[in-house]
Amino acid sequence: MDPDAVARAFVEHYYRTFDTNRAGLAGLYQDSSMLSFEGEKIQGAAAITAKLTGLQFQQCQHNISTIDCQTSGPAGGVIVFVSGSLQLAGEPHALKFSQVWNYLYLGLLSCII
Amino acid sequence: MDPDAVARAFVEHYYRTFDTNRAGLAGLYQDSSMLSFEGEKIQGAAAITAKLTGLQFQQCQHNISTIDCQTSGPAGGVIVFVSGSLQLAGEPHALKFSQVWNYLYLGLLSCII
Repeated sequence: MDPDAVARAFVEHYYRTFDTNRAGLAGLYQDSSMLSFEGEKIQGAAAITAKLTGLQFQQCQHNISTIDCQTSGPAGGVIVFVSGSLQLAGEPHALKFSQVWNYLYLGLLSCII
Repeated sequence: MDPDAVARAFVEHYYRTFDTNRAGLAGLYQDSSMLSFEGEKIQGAAAITAKLTGLQFQQCQHNISTIDCQTSGPAGGVIVFVSGSLQLAGEPHALKFSQVWNYLYLGLLSCII
Protein backbone atom coordinates (compact mmCIF):
# COMPACT_ATOMS: atom_id res chain seq x y z
CA MET A 1 0.00 0.00 0.00
CA ASP A 2 1.59 3.27 -1.14
CA PRO A 3 1.42 5.69 1.84
CA ASP A 4 1.42 8.73 -0.44
CA ALA A 5 -1.60 7.43 -2.34
CA VAL A 6 -3.39 6.65 0.93
CA ALA A 7 -2.59 10.13 2.25
CA ARG A 8 -3.86 11.80 -0.92
CA ALA A 9 -7.11 9.80 -0.84
CA PHE A 10 -7.60 10.60 2.82
CA VAL A 11 -7.01 14.33 2.35
CA GLU A 12 -9.38 14.54 -0.60
CA HIS A 13 -12.04 12.69 1.35
CA TYR A 14 -11.56 14.83 4.46
CA TYR A 15 -11.90 18.19 2.68
CA ARG A 16 -14.73 17.05 0.43
CA THR A 17 -16.58 16.03 3.60
CA PHE A 18 -15.65 19.30 5.33
CA ASP A 19 -16.93 21.39 2.42
CA THR A 20 -20.15 19.46 1.72
CA ASN A 21 -21.22 17.72 4.96
CA ARG A 22 -19.16 18.96 7.88
CA ALA A 23 -21.03 16.88 10.46
CA GLY A 24 -19.86 13.80 8.57
CA LEU A 25 -16.32 14.42 9.82
CA ALA A 26 -17.38 12.70 13.06
CA GLY A 27 -16.79 9.35 11.39
CA LEU A 28 -13.13 10.19 10.84
CA TYR A 29 -12.33 10.83 14.50
CA GLN A 30 -12.18 8.57 17.52
CA ASP A 31 -12.76 9.24 21.23
CA SER A 32 -8.98 9.41 21.65
CA SER A 33 -8.59 11.94 18.82
CA MET A 34 -7.17 15.34 19.66
CA LEU A 35 -7.66 18.53 17.67
CA SER A 36 -5.34 21.51 18.18
CA PHE A 37 -7.04 24.51 16.66
CA GLU A 38 -5.58 28.00 17.00
CA GLY A 39 -4.03 27.18 20.36
CA GLU A 40 -7.04 25.30 21.74
CA LYS A 41 -7.00 21.52 22.36
CA ILE A 42 -10.22 19.58 21.88
CA GLN A 43 -10.54 15.86 22.57
CA GLY A 44 -12.93 13.25 21.22
CA ALA A 45 -14.98 12.82 18.05
CA ALA A 46 -18.09 14.53 19.45
CA ALA A 47 -16.32 17.64 20.77
CA ILE A 48 -14.19 17.99 17.66
CA THR A 49 -17.19 17.75 15.37
CA ALA A 50 -19.06 20.29 17.49
CA LYS A 51 -16.13 22.65 17.18
CA LEU A 52 -15.83 22.29 13.41
CA THR A 53 -19.55 22.52 12.70
CA GLY A 54 -19.79 25.55 14.99
CA LEU A 55 -17.25 27.64 13.09
CA GLN A 56 -18.63 30.98 11.96
CA PHE A 57 -18.42 30.33 8.25
CA GLN A 58 -20.77 27.84 6.63
CA GLN A 59 -20.01 27.61 2.93
CA CYS A 60 -16.36 27.09 2.11
CA GLN A 61 -14.04 25.41 -0.33
CA HIS A 62 -10.57 24.04 0.43
CA ASN A 63 -8.01 24.06 -2.38
CA ILE A 64 -4.96 21.89 -1.75
CA SER A 65 -1.49 23.07 -2.77
CA THR A 66 0.81 20.43 -1.24
CA ILE A 67 0.48 17.06 0.49
CA ASP A 68 3.48 15.45 2.21
CA CYS A 69 3.49 12.32 4.29
CA GLN A 70 5.85 10.20 6.35
CA THR A 71 5.45 7.20 8.60
CA SER A 72 5.09 8.41 12.17
CA GLY A 73 6.70 5.66 14.21
CA PRO A 74 7.02 1.98 15.03
CA ALA A 75 3.27 1.58 15.57
CA GLY A 76 2.63 2.16 11.85
CA GLY A 77 1.04 5.60 11.85
CA VAL A 78 1.23 8.17 9.10
CA ILE A 79 1.80 11.92 9.37
CA VAL A 80 0.21 13.99 6.63
CA PHE A 81 1.03 17.66 6.17
CA VAL A 82 -1.23 19.74 3.93
CA SER A 83 -1.03 23.33 2.79
CA GLY A 84 -3.55 25.21 0.70
CA SER A 85 -6.14 27.93 0.65
CA LEU A 86 -9.64 28.23 2.06
CA GLN A 87 -12.21 30.22 0.12
CA LEU A 88 -15.17 31.42 2.19
CA ALA A 89 -18.46 32.32 0.52
CA GLY A 90 -18.74 36.08 0.01
CA GLU A 91 -15.10 36.79 0.85
CA PRO A 92 -12.93 38.31 -1.89
CA HIS A 93 -9.64 36.74 -0.74
CA ALA A 94 -8.84 33.14 0.10
CA LEU A 95 -7.15 32.35 3.43
CA LYS A 96 -3.93 30.34 3.56
CA PHE A 97 -4.02 27.29 5.80
CA SER A 98 -1.88 24.34 6.75
CA GLN A 99 -2.92 21.25 8.66
CA VAL A 100 -1.26 18.13 10.00
CA TRP A 101 -2.70 14.72 10.74
CA ASN A 102 -1.21 11.87 12.62
CA TYR A 103 -3.29 8.78 12.11
CA LEU A 104 -3.01 5.11 12.76
CA TYR A 105 -4.45 2.68 10.27
CA LEU A 106 -7.43 2.02 12.53
CA GLY A 107 -8.68 5.59 12.31
CA LEU A 108 -7.83 9.22 12.68
CA LEU A 109 -5.93 9.91 15.86
CA SER A 110 -5.20 13.60 16.01
CA CYS A 111 -4.77 16.71 13.97
CA ILE A 112 -3.27 20.16 14.30
CA ILE A 113 -4.56 23.10 12.30
CA MET B 1 7.77 17.05 31.82
CA ASP B 2 5.46 19.51 30.07
CA PRO B 3 5.43 18.56 26.36
CA ASP B 4 4.59 22.13 25.30
CA ALA B 5 7.61 23.51 27.15
CA VAL B 6 9.84 20.83 25.64
CA ALA B 7 8.50 21.61 22.18
CA ARG B 8 9.09 25.34 22.62
CA ALA B 9 12.64 24.81 23.82
CA PHE B 10 13.34 22.45 20.96
CA VAL B 11 11.95 24.84 18.33
CA GLU B 12 13.92 27.79 19.69
CA HIS B 13 17.10 25.72 19.73
CA TYR B 14 16.51 24.38 16.21
CA TYR B 15 15.99 27.79 14.58
CA ARG B 16 18.75 29.50 16.54
CA THR B 17 21.08 26.77 15.25
CA PHE B 18 19.70 27.09 11.72
CA ASP B 19 20.22 30.85 11.68
CA THR B 20 23.67 30.95 13.30
CA ASN B 21 25.40 27.60 12.64
CA ARG B 22 23.44 25.59 10.12
CA ALA B 23 25.95 22.71 10.03
CA GLY B 24 25.23 22.21 13.73
CA LEU B 25 21.77 20.86 12.83
CA ALA B 26 23.50 17.51 12.16
CA GLY B 27 23.43 16.80 15.88
CA LEU B 28 19.64 16.97 15.91
CA TYR B 29 19.10 14.26 13.30
CA GLN B 30 19.71 10.53 13.29
CA ASP B 31 20.53 8.10 10.48
CA SER B 32 16.88 7.09 10.47
CA SER B 33 15.68 10.70 10.22
CA MET B 34 13.68 11.70 7.16
CA LEU B 35 13.31 15.22 5.76
CA SER B 36 10.52 16.03 3.33
CA PHE B 37 11.40 19.31 1.68
CA GLU B 38 9.32 20.75 -1.13
CA GLY B 39 8.31 17.30 -2.34
CA GLU B 40 11.76 15.73 -1.99
CA LYS B 41 12.55 13.07 0.64
CA ILE B 42 16.03 13.00 2.15
CA GLN B 43 17.17 10.38 4.66
CA GLY B 44 19.90 10.44 7.29
CA ALA B 45 21.66 13.12 9.31
CA ALA B 46 24.49 13.63 6.79
CA ALA B 47 22.27 13.98 3.72
CA ILE B 48 19.78 16.23 5.53
CA THR B 49 22.53 18.52 6.79
CA ALA B 50 24.07 18.67 3.31
CA LYS B 51 20.68 19.69 1.90
CA LEU B 52 20.10 22.41 4.51
CA THR B 53 23.60 23.86 4.36
CA GLY B 54 23.44 23.82 0.55
CA LEU B 55 20.34 26.01 0.30
CA GLN B 56 20.92 29.12 -1.83
CA PHE B 57 20.49 31.65 0.96
CA GLN B 58 23.09 31.99 3.67
CA GLN B 59 22.01 34.66 6.15
CA CYS B 60 18.47 34.24 7.40
CA GLN B 61 16.29 34.75 10.44
CA HIS B 62 13.29 32.66 11.42
CA ASN B 63 10.49 34.38 13.34
CA ILE B 64 8.01 32.01 14.99
CA SER B 65 4.28 32.80 15.01
CA THR B 66 2.75 29.59 16.42
CA ILE B 67 3.93 26.37 18.04
CA ASP B 68 1.51 23.48 18.59
CA CYS B 69 2.35 20.04 19.83
CA GLN B 70 0.70 16.71 20.53
CA THR B 71 1.92 13.28 21.52
CA SER B 72 2.38 11.19 18.40
CA GLY B 73 1.59 7.68 19.54
CA PRO B 74 2.12 4.86 21.99
CA ALA B 75 5.92 4.97 21.59
CA GLY B 76 6.03 8.38 23.29
CA GLY B 77 6.88 10.68 20.42
CA VAL B 78 5.85 14.30 20.02
CA ILE B 79 4.60 16.11 16.94
CA VAL B 80 5.45 19.79 16.78
CA PHE B 81 3.86 22.09 14.21
CA VAL B 82 5.40 25.52 13.68
CA SER B 83 4.38 28.45 11.51
CA GLY B 84 6.23 31.69 11.02
CA SER B 85 8.20 33.83 8.63
CA LEU B 86 11.69 33.58 7.21
CA GLN B 87 13.60 36.79 6.53
CA LEU B 88 16.45 36.43 4.04
CA ALA B 89 19.31 38.95 4.00
CA GLY B 90 18.77 41.58 1.31
CA GLU B 91 15.15 40.58 0.59
CA PRO B 92 12.45 43.17 1.26
CA HIS B 93 9.68 40.70 2.14
CA ALA B 94 9.72 37.79 4.58
CA LEU B 95 8.58 34.36 3.37
CA LYS B 96 5.86 32.43 5.20
CA PHE B 97 6.80 28.93 6.28
CA SER B 98 5.41 26.05 8.27
CA GLN B 99 7.23 22.97 9.47
CA VAL B 100 6.38 19.79 11.33
CA TRP B 101 8.55 17.54 13.44
CA ASN B 102 7.86 14.09 14.74
CA TYR B 103 10.45 13.18 17.28
CA LEU B 104 11.01 10.49 19.83
CA TYR B 105 12.65 11.34 23.09
CA LEU B 106 15.89 9.77 21.92
CA GLY B 107 16.36 12.24 19.10
CA LEU B 108 14.83 13.87 16.09
CA LEU B 109 13.14 11.37 13.85
CA SER B 110 11.72 13.21 10.90
CA CYS B 111 10.47 16.52 9.70
CA ILE B 112 8.36 17.94 6.91
CA ILE B 113 8.83 21.46 5.63
